[in-house]
Parts: sequence; C-alpha cells; structure tokens
Amino acid sequence: MRVLGVDPGLTRCGVGVVEGVAGRPLTMRGVGVVRTPADAELGLRLVAIEQGIEQWLDEYRPECVAVERVFSQHNVRTVMGTAQASAVAMLCAARRGIPVALHTPSEVKAAVTGSGRADKAQVGAMVTRLLRLDAPPKPADAADALALAICHIWRAPAQNRLQQAVALHASKGRTA
Amino acid sequence: MRVLGVDPGLTRCGVGVVEGVAGRPLTMRGVGVVRTPADAELGLRLVAIEQGIEQWLDEYRPECVAVERVFSQHNVRTVMGTAQASAVAMLCAARRGIPVALHTPSEVKAAVTGSGRADKAQVGAMVTRLLRLDAPPKPADAADALALAICHIWRAPAQNRLQQAVALHASKGRTA
Repeated sequence: MRVLGVDPGLTRCGVGVVEGVAGRPLTMRGVGVVRTPADAELGLRLVAIEQGIEQWLDEYRPECVAVERVFSQHNVRTVMGTAQASAVAMLCAARRGIPVALHTPSEVKAAVTGSGRADKAQVGAMVTRLLRLDAPPKPADAADALALAICHIWRAPAQNRLQQAVALHASKGRTA
Repeated sequence: MRVLGVDPGLTRCGVGVVEGVAGRPLTMRGVGVVRTPADAELGLRLVAIEQGIEQWLDEYRPECVAVERVFSQHNVRTVMGTAQASAVAMLCAARRGIPVALHTPSEVKAAVTGSGRADKAQVGAMVTRLLRLDAPPKPADAADALALAICHIWRAPAQNRLQQAVALHASKGRTA
C-alpha cells in the first residue's frame, strides 16, 4: 500500500509518501513541504496548495491519502487556515477517486510512538527509525506527514476489519 | 459590477448573483443553494461543492466572488465544515483569476440593515426590498449569499479608495 500523508497548513503543508504493509518494514518514497507566502491572498494560497498536492499525486500515484483531522478546539488562531488547506488536499484526492482517511494528531502519535501525548522530537525520532532514515525529516511538518502515512498503513487493516464486521452485522440484521 | 455571493456550508452552501453599482438599484441575477448529503464522505462533499460553484461561475461569469469570512470563535461544531466549504469556493474563484473578497457576518448585516446585530428575518426582509423581490429568498443561506453580494457592491468603492490611498502612501514613502 502506498500512502500520501498530508499535514495541512497554509504556510507549510507537510507531504510524505510511505509504502508498505502492516507488520513489515516500511519504505519512504518521498517527503517535502508545499509552501505558500504568508502575504499572498488567501484564494491564491489555496490555488498554490492545490497545484502542489496535484504534483505529489501525479508523481507518486498513492492508493490512499491520509490527512490530519483538524479540531476547532486547538490553536484557534491558525485552525481556519489548517481547515482550509486540509479541504484542498481532500478535494484533490477525492476528485481522482483516491480514498481519503482522517487521523487525529493523538492517533498518529500513539501509532508511531506508543503515546498519544508524544512531542514533536519523539515523533521525528520514531519516523526516522521506522523508515530507516539517516536523520529526522525537517521541518517537523514533513516528519508529521510521514507519521500520518505510517499511522494509516498500520491502522487501515484494523479499520477494514471493523468496517467488514459492521457490514456483516448489518446484513445479518436485514436477513433476520 | 456582477458579484457572486457565497454563504459557505457543507450541507447548504448559499449562492446568489447580484449586479449593479453603489448608489443605484441592484438586480438579482440568480439565487440558489449547493447541497451535499450529510452522510457522504467529506472528500466527496467537497468535490460536490466544487462542481456546484463551478456551475455558478460558468453560468453567471461574476467579476468578483464575495465569501463570508469564517471565524473560529463561533459555532465550534460546524465551523470546520464552513471553513472547508469556503476554501473550495475561494479556490474555484482564484483558479479563474476572479478576485475574492471576504466580509464578516456583522459587516454584511450592517451593510444591508444598518445594524451588525440584525437577525436572519431582518436580513431577509432587506434583501427582498433592495432587490425588489416578491418574497424573501429561502432558505436563509440563499438570502445571506445575496446579502454578501450586496454588501460587496456597496463596500467595494470604499475599499478600493482605501487601497489606493495606502498604495499612494507607500509609493511616497519609497521615494522620500
């Protein structure tokens, strides 16, 4: 499974592509940041993010895009921009028929470090180890995007089993 | 000046086209709502909003798109969806090179009713009067989209004068 992780943001949108399956060593295919100038008009920044995400989808052809789920409770000053950048990433994927998965920051931290309250340095260190990199990806948004992709590869089998169980239960309910 | 007003929302995105200039009677060219099913996946809902907005831009060819400025302080439960829908509307306009203007709900209310704290009924009544309609547009999102377009037509001249003054001041500063 090849997953594009997106850590959404207007100024820095982290992107990272990870390939592999749960239970096997994972491979990083690419990592980077889509940047937009803070002094540009909002509409133009969203267009720049769209173009950046499109390039990553063109180049890496992921089977799934994992985006950080944005909560309105946190970081009130930046949350609107984060929500808007995440909308563009989801739109680009869905337009191509690529499934979009959302994971919360604590799900991602718990997946890669074992703790939902791990700090950025710990996430960076585990991403470096799990992908056998020489150094933590910089900036932190890039490392977070890779962590999102890893989280998705590891959580997807459990999520699929859960969905299958729910579907089975629902179909039994209908035939009963 | 022909303006498309957009009252962003995931479930109902109000859209309304108003034509005219400040100081003259205004004309409604179109009004409606782009709807997406609440049980659809978020990515697909954003694609549906994109398609809806594109249709309105194709049909009415506005010179400007006025979108409600979303604040993270209000309606915490729905604000993320509102921010994401607004991002899609801004993206569609900016991609075509159409200027995007943002107005706050209180700016819009103050423009059409004289009070920034007017209620929905009052906004609907004034939109009906200003556009010489037979009845208030329904749902309220559609009326709000028309109010946004009216607000923009009335505020744009003042905003342009302000921008020109700022630009003049800046150019004087450079030559001094």
